[in-house]
Amino acid sequence: MEDQPLYDFTSPPLLVVLSGPSGVGKDTLLQKLQEYGYEFCFVVTMTTRPPRPNEVHGKDYLFVNKDEFARLMMMDEFLEHSVVYGDYKGIPKDQVRKALASGKDVLMRIDVQGAAKVHKIVPNAVTIFLTTETEGELVSRLSERKTETSDGLAIRIATTREEMKRLDEFDYVVINREGQQDDAVKQILSIISAEHCRVHRRPISL
Amino acid sequence: MEDQPLYDFTSPPLLVVLSGPSGVGKDTLLQKLQEYGYEFCFVVTMTTRPPRPNEVHGKDYLFVNKDEFARLMMMDEFLEHSVVYGDYKGIPKDQVRKALASGKDVLMRIDVQGAAKVHKIVPNAVTIFLTTETEGELVSRLSERKTETSDGLAIRIATTREEMKRLDEFDYVVINREGQQDDAVKQILSIISAEHCRVHRRPISL
Repeated sequence: MEDQPLYDFTSPPLLVVLSGPSGVGKDTLLQKLQEYGYEFCFVVTMTTRPPRPNEVHGKDYLFVNKDEFARLMMMDEFLEHSVVYGDYKGIPKDQVRKALASGKDVLMRIDVQGAAKVHKIVPNAVTIFLTTETEGELVSRLSERKTETSDGLAIRIATTREEMKRLDEFDYVVINREGQQDDAVKQILSIISAEHCRVHRRPISL
Repeated sequence: MEDQPLYDFTSPPLLVVLSGPSGVGKDTLLQKLQEYGYEFCFVVTMTTRPPRPNEVHGKDYLFVNKDEFARLMMMDEFLEHSVVYGDYKGIPKDQVRKALASGKDVLMRIDVQGAAKVHKIVPNAVTIFLTTETEGELVSRLSERKTETSDGLAIRIATTREEMKRLDEFDYVVINREGQQDDAVKQILSIISAEHCRVHRRPISL
């Protein structure tokens, strides 16, 4: 008699949403996840704003004109989209589908409002809220960026306070402590590893 | 202005149930979890069967007579209990309460039926189903034990097949592959780490 597997142990690719207030360190963590050898497909956001110097189409953003964006909106081809300072940005479903088809986990970096929307549409997405421990830490990081005016900073702090209220809509919360980024990376990797062991994991379809 | 935490990030102790067919390697993994430096309280099962040579009261089992067991049963003081070959065994709630009060995570090794019962009573317990990849591996491990008669073995295999049907009642499934026990230990540690990052984690009360 041939020895059969006791169970179908294959785990489909995860859809992982990394979110949190701006300045919390999402981009650095994404880079570190790669450095740790975690292989994933990253979904690039589509935007109608013009590229900044050094920004690469397909890597940083997908840059399209408003007509093209509107066409995809009409076809319900965005997982989520929003208007930021008069420009549109959104996650094209097709990008996510292609990424999932690769067989690798799919990671997306989305703002808190967008992430909450995605979680409603795709309940079995894994949503991670990245935060600093205190508001002070966040403020000092944003100040260090020096790209913020004091007005801009005040708006970001107010936004963060609103965003913290939505934490309950997420699956996991990870604290990105100053000088302890590796702990945050390891926690995210633990979450991903654990989610692959879930019994009720079903493939994601959009 | 004092810098306040953005959120109550404290994570209460977990109640972790490690289960799976007999012969799958639960005891060895529990030992390895300790070797990896994971600090937890282990809840010892109470039984009315007499101690075997080398078995220590309070470490291997809590050995009590049937009157004492019946008294606790009447008081609904078992998280779960069952009859095995005419002897009673069960998890005393008081042991779990004391363990949770230590502030450490609480681990229990329970058979598949018992674990499913605990999950119903304590929905926020973390239940892990440990399994081999194939039935053949399990059979060869049980045969190596040499404590099983061929009749005993046949019964255990039939039991395993029944137990596999209950896998859906568990949160996580971890495969204990021959010679790759460390992978299984790391996966269990990932699950525990991830569960401590859960947003909706509430303290367990019995």
